[in-house]
Amino acid sequence: VNRNSTLNADTVWSDCCAVRTQAPLVHSLTNLVVMAFNANTLLAAGASPIMAHAVEEVADLARLSGAVVVNIGTLDAHWVPAMQLALDTARAAGKPSVLDPVGAGASAYRNQVLADLITRRPTLVRGNASEILSLAGHSANTKGVDSTDPVELALAAAQSLAQRYGCVVCVSGPEDHVLAPDGRHAVLRNGHPLMTRVTGVGCSASALVGAFAAVQPDPWRACVSAMAYWGVVGEIAAQRIGPDGGTGRYASTLLDVASTLSATALQQTLRVEVVA
Amino acid sequence: VNRNSTLNADTVWSDCCAVRTQAPLVHSLTNLVVMAFNANTLLAAGASPIMAHAVEEVADLARLSGAVVVNIGTLDAHWVPAMQLALDTARAAGKPSVLDPVGAGASAYRNQVLADLITRRPTLVRGNASEILSLAGHSANTKGVDSTDPVELALAAAQSLAQRYGCVVCVSGPEDHVLAPDGRHAVLRNGHPLMTRVTGVGCSASALVGAFAAVQPDPWRACVSAMAYWGVVGEIAAQRIGPDGGTGRYASTLLDVASTLSATALQQTLRVEVVA
Amino acid sequence: VNRNSTLNADTVWSDCCAVRTQAPLVHSLTNLVVMAFNANTLLAAGASPIMAHAVEEVADLARLSGAVVVNIGTLDAHWVPAMQLALDTARAAGKPSVLDPVGAGASAYRNQVLADLITRRPTLVRGNASEILSLAGHSANTKGVDSTDPVELALAAAQSLAQRYGCVVCVSGPEDHVLAPDGRHAVLRNGHPLMTRVTGVGCSASALVGAFAAVQPDPWRACVSAMAYWGVVGEIAAQRIGPDGGTGRYASTLLDVASTLSATALQQTLRVEVVA
Repeated sequence: VNRNSTLNADTVWSDCCAVRTQAPLVHSLTNLVVMAFNANTLLAAGASPIMAHAVEEVADLARLSGAVVVNIGTLDAHWVPAMQLALDTARAAGKPSVLDPVGAGASAYRNQVLADLITRRPTLVRGNASEILSLAGHSANTKGVDSTDPVELALAAAQSLAQRYGCVVCVSGPEDHVLAPDGRHAVLRNGHPLMTRVTGVGCSASALVGAFAAVQPDPWRACVSAMAYWGVVGEIAAQRIGPDGGTGRYASTLLDVASTLSATALQQTLRVEVVA
Repeated sequence: VNRNSTLNADTVWSDCCAVRTQAPLVHSLTNLVVMAFNANTLLAAGASPIMAHAVEEVADLARLSGAVVVNIGTLDAHWVPAMQLALDTARAAGKPSVLDPVGAGASAYRNQVLADLITRRPTLVRGNASEILSLAGHSANTKGVDSTDPVELALAAAQSLAQRYGCVVCVSGPEDHVLAPDGRHAVLRNGHPLMTRVTGVGCSASALVGAFAAVQPDPWRACVSAMAYWGVVGEIAAQRIGPDGGTGRYASTLLDVASTLSATALQQTLRVEVVA
Repeated sequence: VNRNSTLNADTVWSDCCAVRTQAPLVHSLTNLVVMAFNANTLLAAGASPIMAHAVEEVADLARLSGAVVVNIGTLDAHWVPAMQLALDTARAAGKPSVLDPVGAGASAYRNQVLADLITRRPTLVRGNASEILSLAGHSANTKGVDSTDPVELALAAAQSLAQRYGCVVCVSGPEDHVLAPDGRHAVLRNGHPLMTRVTGVGCSASALVGAFAAVQPDPWRACVSAMAYWGVVGEIAAQRIGPDGGTGRYASTLLDVASTLSATALQQTLRVEVVA
């Protein structure tokens, strides 16, 4: 186990700069609600989004891309074969992939599709506590797409998923936890409650994880850097709009901060801890 | 007939607070253009959006939700069975449902699908004058998705729909009319012409009607409160950006006002009248 | 050949006013990522968007509309017959149509669908240099949806396409080139690099080309006016947010400027040249 306890603003900033410099192509099969916001988040970070879901072309595009992101938010049987093929192609081509199990546990069909997708061994999984619990086979208290379980309860489930499938697992919430199959565990303490009041903010975190994994070969560090970047962006955006700010200006300000973040601002705001 | 002539800022505010407190899950099968804005409007009001259209899971999600909203804006034969099942499930489970007949009259196919959906007896229907006229079987002067008939002409059609199908019908326009099957009729005189220049503002009204109906058992009152809230928000947002403001800032400001509206601002702006 | 070397701010403004006055209905079959932004751009310009893709109704809607726009960004086999029918119906009804070959060259399937769509003779084609090169059958250096070929290399390909299919071809980039089958060639030197960092800005240009072609019978002039309008809007929006502005505020400001542009601002900013 290569325990890297030196994750800090320098490593995060270095990965941010790699995204901006390399502008990786991120191929997303994501949900219909968040597509535009996710694409704008990727562009703000310096990555290059491509969204395509036709089974006739996803293998071509996955091979062309730096990473594949699959998000089942608006699940459609017509898209499932393309999601499977995109994950399989990424794996075969040695490209990182991310699975966002939106709404896991909310319907039997969703659970059935996820049970298949996880066996295709995405490099990374990012979800809230309920989703990670459900995906790991625990009974979760799911209310639609919002989590009602405390993050802590999901950590054992995340560790179990990470070990069973060899993937990095991120449990996001008021604190974000990033667990590696080898036991590494980072905790991030940034963000702001307003992030839950704009649609697509969580899904954009998953998209960013893909972008960072495309440029940083250690997927655990890539995930920590992506979540650190987005949490810091969310926190600074909330400060910038002030206590009376509304959610419209907050959504716009997230992209403003994401597209102009400096090393200094990151340094002053980041709270990351490697706990194992 | 329980004629409640006391609808006013207090009843509207009480329903707004119930949405914020109870955060009802609103399950929408809506059009591809407005999904993000509708989700953000629901979040701004304090509700919790879930958008899912797979026929394999809509019954599960409708039962989990506080209300179902069906909007045919980007109609797709692949989605129709899911729309039918969602409305039927909501009815069987005693959950309120809303039908937004976007573009009724614009194509033969749209009319045919609507003729089926309305027989599934949604609790509420919200459309512009042309759409309501078309849905009621009158010839309407439809230009795509915009209304070219004055609201007044549609009132008889709305009353006829309300009585035939036992649903609350809202005809929106410069004035919004809300008619109940028992003859109750409220008129709302808020809003701003800029609301017609941002995509999804009308569809978001329907989404909000679903959220309010999830927490307010009288669907007529729920519809009046939702339309009152959104009309007041639209009016205050226009004041806030001023006469030189453009539509980009207006869209963002709608969400700002929606997410921060106070009882006082509502009280000072609301113009509602129960005319029958 | 009717060489009109007098394209200038007056002709552009006249076409802008025609869009605002006539509010043409623009029927788009466009990609899932950009639908909302495209609709808002059309509304800001004064046009009336309708997005519908069901094969059962696209012919009805194409006949009802002033122009048809087909954009293959999120290509789906389920949509292709509707795209074909919409283009065919527009042609048969004498309505202008626009093809945006997003991501041409990125997959074999995309190329195969485009090879069919171009034979349906859209009135106008708008793409970046790589897309135009690919569509013309040249080998292009495509990186997903971003162009990596200089615009200049694509001009011969554009001229070849224009002559072979009798369509106006726009190659967009740092400079936009608009070529007619009869050899007319305009160059536009407006815009700003930030336009590439907001999703849907290019696709919105294609949507605007449709709106302008619906009111201006010369498709070459319509395309020049639409690209001029959008380039000027993009440039003024960048000035307004200043050098420290981010992409969230830029997206919103694009719509603000688009919805409030004056003849004077257009006159002071426009750089258009008819080179042939």
